[in-house]
Amino acid sequence: MAKDLFKLGLSIVSRSGKTIISSVDEYGFPNTKAMLKPREQDGLKTFYLTTNTSSMRVHQYRNNPKACLYFFDARFFRGIMLRGTMEVLEDQETKARIWKTGDTMYYKEGVTDPDYCVLKFTASDARIYENFKSLSFEIE
Amino acid sequence: MAKDLFKLGLSIVSRSGKTIISSVDEYGFPNTKAMLKPREQDGLKTFYLTTNTSSMRVHQYRNNPKACLYFFDARFFRGIMLRGTMEVLEDQETKARIWKTGDTMYYKEGVTDPDYCVLKFTASDARIYENFKSLSFEIE
Repeated sequence: MAKDLFKLGLSIVSRSGKTIISSVDEYGFPNTKAMLKPREQDGLKTFYLTTNTSSMRVHQYRNNPKACLYFFDARFFRGIMLRGTMEVLEDQETKARIWKTGDTMYYKEGVTDPDYCVLKFTASDARIYENFKSLSFEIE
Repeated sequence: MAKDLFKLGLSIVSRSGKTIISSVDEYGFPNTKAMLKPREQDGLKTFYLTTNTSSMRVHQYRNNPKACLYFFDARFFRGIMLRGTMEVLEDQETKARIWKTGDTMYYKEGVTDPDYCVLKFTASDARIYENFKSLSFEIE
């Protein structure tokens, strides 16, 4: 059962064209934004995304790492919410690993651009929506 | 300027096939879900959505009304986040006004189904993302 849910979750993530990320701001409001697909992923446990170091989201995660990622497959009306924590990584090793040709479009100074950083999300649990029902499970 | 942003915001909302709603759960984590388009809307100020009274989201908004709605237009990489508060409405007048033929697919007992309720979102401010830039403005 949990294995089937896990497979379904992976399938929703891979079919989702976007990553919806949420944080909690300094006034306690949820904040949500669409981002590109994750650059790297280990099952449903860890996800790596790229963003601007100067962005509001980075500022919020530094103050409060509580986060969720949401992926959905609009065609089948399926979604998965992953709840967990977000780290802001600026070490050059990670930045180089995640960097892709063409990223200079977003970060003019290239892989060492101080405005380029990596977000690492680590999930603790998941909730899948399908056929008007929801099921939660832990991520080991 | 603010007028142009307002018009752009309305256009993103109308082109978005879905409404992404977020809440904050009892552990302080942001929670996000995709829902259908709003049933009613007054500019960028108020939005009405339908949902199950028994749902996790309703439970969370009753505990903590802080909310955001997010709409995006994937084709042009534009998005708008509206920050505000969410009310759970169960009065029969509102339920009847928002009800649409076909909703019995979701709520078997019809317009008086106790598991059918209306979410009313009231925005305080907005943030628009376009061309890799973000601009915030207040909603009057």
